[in-house]
Amino acid sequence: MVNGAHALISTLVGAGVETCFTNPGTSEIHFVAALDAVPEMRAVLTLFEGVATGAADGYARMKDAPAATLLHLGPGLGNGLANLHNARRARVPVINIVGDHATYHTPYDTPLQSDIETVARNVSTWVRTSRKTEELARDAVEAIAAAIGPPGQVATLIVPADVSWQDGAEPAAPLAPAASSAVSGDIIDAVAKAIRGSHRTGILLGDKALRERGLIAAARIAAATGTRLFAERNVARLERGAGLPAVERLAYWPELVSKQLNGLEILILAGAKTPYASFAYPGKNSSLVPAGCEVHELSQPTSDVLRSLEELVQALDAGDAKPALQTAFVPPRPEGPLTAEKVCQAVGATLPEGAILSDEAITSALALPASTAGAPRHDWLTLTGGAIGQGLPVAVGAAVVCPDRPVIALEADGSALYTIQSLWTMAREQLEVTVVIFNNRAYAILNTEFARIGVQEAGPRAKAQLKLGNPDIDFVELGNGLGISSCRVDTGEQLTGALDQAITDPGPHLIEAVIPAV
Amino acid sequence: MVNGAHALISTLVGAGVETCFTNPGTSEIHFVAALDAVPEMRAVLTLFEGVATGAADGYARMKDAPAATLLHLGPGLGNGLANLHNARRARVPVINIVGDHATYHTPYDTPLQSDIETVARNVSTWVRTSRKTEELARDAVEAIAAAIGPPGQVATLIVPADVSWQDGAEPAAPLAPAASSAVSGDIIDAVAKAIRGSHRTGILLGDKALRERGLIAAARIAAATGTRLFAERNVARLERGAGLPAVERLAYWPELVSKQLNGLEILILAGAKTPYASFAYPGKNSSLVPAGCEVHELSQPTSDVLRSLEELVQALDAGDAKPALQTAFVPPRPEGPLTAEKVCQAVGATLPEGAILSDEAITSALALPASTAGAPRHDWLTLTGGAIGQGLPVAVGAAVVCPDRPVIALEADGSALYTIQSLWTMAREQLEVTVVIFNNRAYAILNTEFARIGVQEAGPRAKAQLKLGNPDIDFVELGNGLGISSCRVDTGEQLTGALDQAITDPGPHLIEAVIPAV
Repeated sequence: MVNGAHALISTLVGAGVETCFTNPGTSEIHFVAALDAVPEMRAVLTLFEGVATGAADGYARMKDAPAATLLHLGPGLGNGLANLHNARRARVPVINIVGDHATYHTPYDTPLQSDIETVARNVSTWVRTSRKTEELARDAVEAIAAAIGPPGQVATLIVPADVSWQDGAEPAAPLAPAASSAVSGDIIDAVAKAIRGSHRTGILLGDKALRERGLIAAARIAAATGTRLFAERNVARLERGAGLPAVERLAYWPELVSKQLNGLEILILAGAKTPYASFAYPGKNSSLVPAGCEVHELSQPTSDVLRSLEELVQALDAGDAKPALQTAFVPPRPEGPLTAEKVCQAVGATLPEGAILSDEAITSALALPASTAGAPRHDWLTLTGGAIGQGLPVAVGAAVVCPDRPVIALEADGSALYTIQSLWTMAREQLEVTVVIFNNRAYAILNTEFARIGVQEAGPRAKAQLKLGNPDIDFVELGNGLGISSCRVDTGEQLTGALDQAITDPGPHLIEAVIPAV
Repeated sequence: MVNGAHALISTLVGAGVETCFTNPGTSEIHFVAALDAVPEMRAVLTLFEGVATGAADGYARMKDAPAATLLHLGPGLGNGLANLHNARRARVPVINIVGDHATYHTPYDTPLQSDIETVARNVSTWVRTSRKTEELARDAVEAIAAAIGPPGQVATLIVPADVSWQDGAEPAAPLAPAASSAVSGDIIDAVAKAIRGSHRTGILLGDKALRERGLIAAARIAAATGTRLFAERNVARLERGAGLPAVERLAYWPELVSKQLNGLEILILAGAKTPYASFAYPGKNSSLVPAGCEVHELSQPTSDVLRSLEELVQALDAGDAKPALQTAFVPPRPEGPLTAEKVCQAVGATLPEGAILSDEAITSALALPASTAGAPRHDWLTLTGGAIGQGLPVAVGAAVVCPDRPVIALEADGSALYTIQSLWTMAREQLEVTVVIFNNRAYAILNTEFARIGVQEAGPRAKAQLKLGNPDIDFVELGNGLGISSCRVDTGEQLTGALDQAITDPGPHLIEAVIPAV
C-alpha cells in the first residue's frame, strides 16, 4: 500500500505512460514528491501550462500513445486549454492530471477554487474527479483507456490533494484496449462503386490514413482508378518525402481549395472530415465541396481507416497497382536577401533524413510543401485546431519521444510568442530541436483577412493591431535569455549555413530569419 | 445605422468603457476594422490573452470601472482564463468581447469551434452569445451593467462574426447603475454590540474597505474601542503609506495567521470573507478563525461596505475618535550583496509619492509590508486568485489608466514567466512601469511546501521540479528582446541606483535583482 500519488504514477507507468509534462503547484506537491519512488516516470518541467499540453500533443502524434500532463487546478488547466483544443482536433490521446483542493477544503471557496470539471469539458470527452485514494488507480486506468480510444482524445482526471496524500492505494493494471469498430462491407462496396462510376473522383485523407500504410493503399487506388489524393488542411502528422506517395494538402484560403477540388464529382473521406472554410466570410460559401459533388465517408472515427482503405484496394482490384512514389528532389540553396519563400527553400535544401517538421508559420510557409516534397523522408506536424502557439510545444513533445530524430520547428513570430517558454524546456532537456522564426513583424494572416472582408483601406488604428513592430521583437535575445543558442540571419547563405550547423551540433538552436515586414 | 462591430464599440465608449486590451484574430477582424471609426476607444494590443485579461483587472482596480478585452474564440478565452479567475476574485468589473464563428458556420465544426459559453462560465457570472446585429448594442449594455454590479464581476459577451459584420445596428445608451443593497440596521446593531461586549475584537477589511474612506472609518472604531484591524490576504487594492491608517495584512502561511489572530473572541468581516488557508495540509485545520471566535459579517457583497463601516462608527459613537495614522518612515538604503529582504528595503527606500505597487513576489516579498509601511502614500495590488502570472499584466492595466503615477511591479522569476509578453506591451505603450524581478531561480514557495507536507528529504527528481536553473533564465535578455530597457543588479547600491533612474527616466524599465538561489 502506498499513497495515492505514488499509486497514480505507478499506474501510469504500468500502462506505458512514462512521460509527464509538468507545471505543478501546491495541490500537486505529493505527485512531485512521489517522482523519486517511480524512476520510470520522466517528468519534464515547463514554465507555462500551454507548453505542457502542447508537448503532450506532439509526443502523442509521434508515439501514437499518450503522455500525461500535470496541471495546477482550474487556472493551470485554463492556461493549457488552447493546446488541449488543438490536441482534441489532432485526435491524439492526452491524459491531464489536474490537482485540486482537498475534498474537505472545497466548501471554503479559497482563492484557487473553481469549477475545474466545467473548464475540462471544453476539450475533454472524459472528465472525472477522483474521490477516494483507494479508487484513484482505477480512475487512472479508465482515463488512460478513454484517452487511447479509438479515437484518441483528451481525458482529464482531477485529483484532490487528500486523495493524493492519503495512504491505502495500490497501482492498477491497464485495461484491455478497445477494439476499432468493424469495417462495413456495404460502405466499402458503395465507395468502390462510386469511384468506378466517375472519372472525377478524389480521396481526402486524414488522421492515420496519412501514414505510410494509408498512403500506399490510397496510392494504389489512385494508380488503378485515376482518383486524385488530397490531405486535410489540419493534419496531426503526415509522412512524406522521397519514396512515399505524395498527396496534396488542402490550402488555407477557400478560393485556393475551390481550385484544388474543382470538377470533382465524388469525394471520399478517409479519416477526414467534410472540408469547410476555417472561417465564414460575408457572401461566401462555408462549404468547400464543389457544387454537385457527392461525399462518401469511408470510415468512422472509431473504425480503422487503414483497414478500410486496404479493403477498398481489394474491392477495386487495385492490389497489384503500383503506387506512384515521390522522386527525390532537393531545391537549390537560396542566395541573397531572405524572403519567406527562400526560407522554405533553405529548409528543403537542408532537411535531413528522418526529420520531424513542426510547422506553424502559416502565411510564411506557403512555399514549404513544394520545397520539401522531394526531400528525404520526414514527418510533417501542423496546426490542427487553429489555436496558435502550438508549434513550439509540439516540437518539444516530438523531440522528447524521438531523441534520435532532428526536429525542426517553423514558427511565425506572432505564434511563437504565445508559448515562447517552450525554448527553456528545449534547453533544459537538451532536445534536438532547431527553431526557425519567420520574423515579418506582423500578424500577417490578418492583413490578408482585411482584404478578404472588403476593408479596402484599413485605418491606421486598425493596422496597428496587426503589426508586431514598435518595438521590434528580438528573438535572438529571447532565445538566449531562455538558454537556447540563438542567431539571426538575413540571407540565404547565412540561413543554410545556420541550419547545417544547428542540425549537426547537439542540443537546441534558434534561428531568427528576418524576412520583409508585412 | 452601422455594422454590429461599430455599434458595439460606440456603445462601450458611450458607457465609459474607453479601453480595450486586445489579441484579435479573424473572427474579431470587423471589431478591429471599426476602431478607426470610433477614435475614443483605445485599443492596447497584447501578444497573449493572459496579458489582456490581467491588464483589464489592473485597469479596473485603479479606475473602479471596467475595461474590455477582445479575445479570439474559445482558445483565446482559455488563454485569458487564469487572469480572469484572478479578476473574479478581485471582484473587479471586466467585459470580455469574445469573437465566434458566424452563426451559420458553427454547425460545420471547423477547427476553432468549441463551446465558448462553457469555458466562460468558470469565471463569468454573466455570459451571453449575441444572436442578432440589431440586439448587439443592447446585449453590450447589459454586459456592462452586469460587470459593474455591485459587486464587480466578469461578464462575457460572445459575438459571432456575422453579428459583427452585418449592418443595421445602432449604439445603445448605458443602463442606469444598480443600487447597492440597503445596509441593515439590525446587523449594524449586532456588530456594535459584539464589539462592545469584548476586549478581544478584530475587523478584517477587504474590497473597498481597504480604500482611504474605509480605513479611516475602521481606524476610528479601533481608536474608540481597541479593536484590531486586519486586511485580507488577497487584496485587489490597498491604500497605504504615511498619513493613512495602517492595517496588518494576513500572512500566507496558516501558522503565521494563527499568530496574527490569536486570542480574538470576535471577528468582524467588512468586505472580507471568512479566512481559510489557501490550501489544506494533512492533519491541519483549514479554518484560520481561532477556536471559539465569533464571526460577524458586516456587509454583503452587494451592499456598500463603506456606508456599513460609517454607520458602525456612528453606532459605536466613534465619530470623534481620532484615527491612528501611519507616520512617515523610510528604511535606510541597503548596501552590499542583495537578499530578498534588501530588495524590499530598497523599494521602501526609493518609493515615490503616489506609486502603484503590483506585488507578485510571493515568498521574496515577505519583508515588503514592513519596509514600505511608512513610505509615501501608495496603492498595493496583490495576487487575488492564486493563479500566478498576474503581476505584470496588472501593472500594464494600472499604468494605462494612471499614466501620471509610477507603477512598480515586484515579480518572482517563476510567476513572471507565465505572462512575460507583458513587457512588450509596456514598451509599445511606453508605460511608466518599473519591473523588479526577484530572481532566486526556483519556485521557492514549493520548497516550503515540501517541508510542510512532511517530506523530510525530497529526492533529486522531485527537487528538480522546483528549480528554475539549468539553464538559468536571463531576464535582461528577455526584457531587451521584448523592447524594454533592462539591467541586472546584485548589490543594494546598484539596485537603489537603478530604481532611482528607472523611476525618473520615461518609459518602462526592467531590473533583474539576483538574490541567493533557493
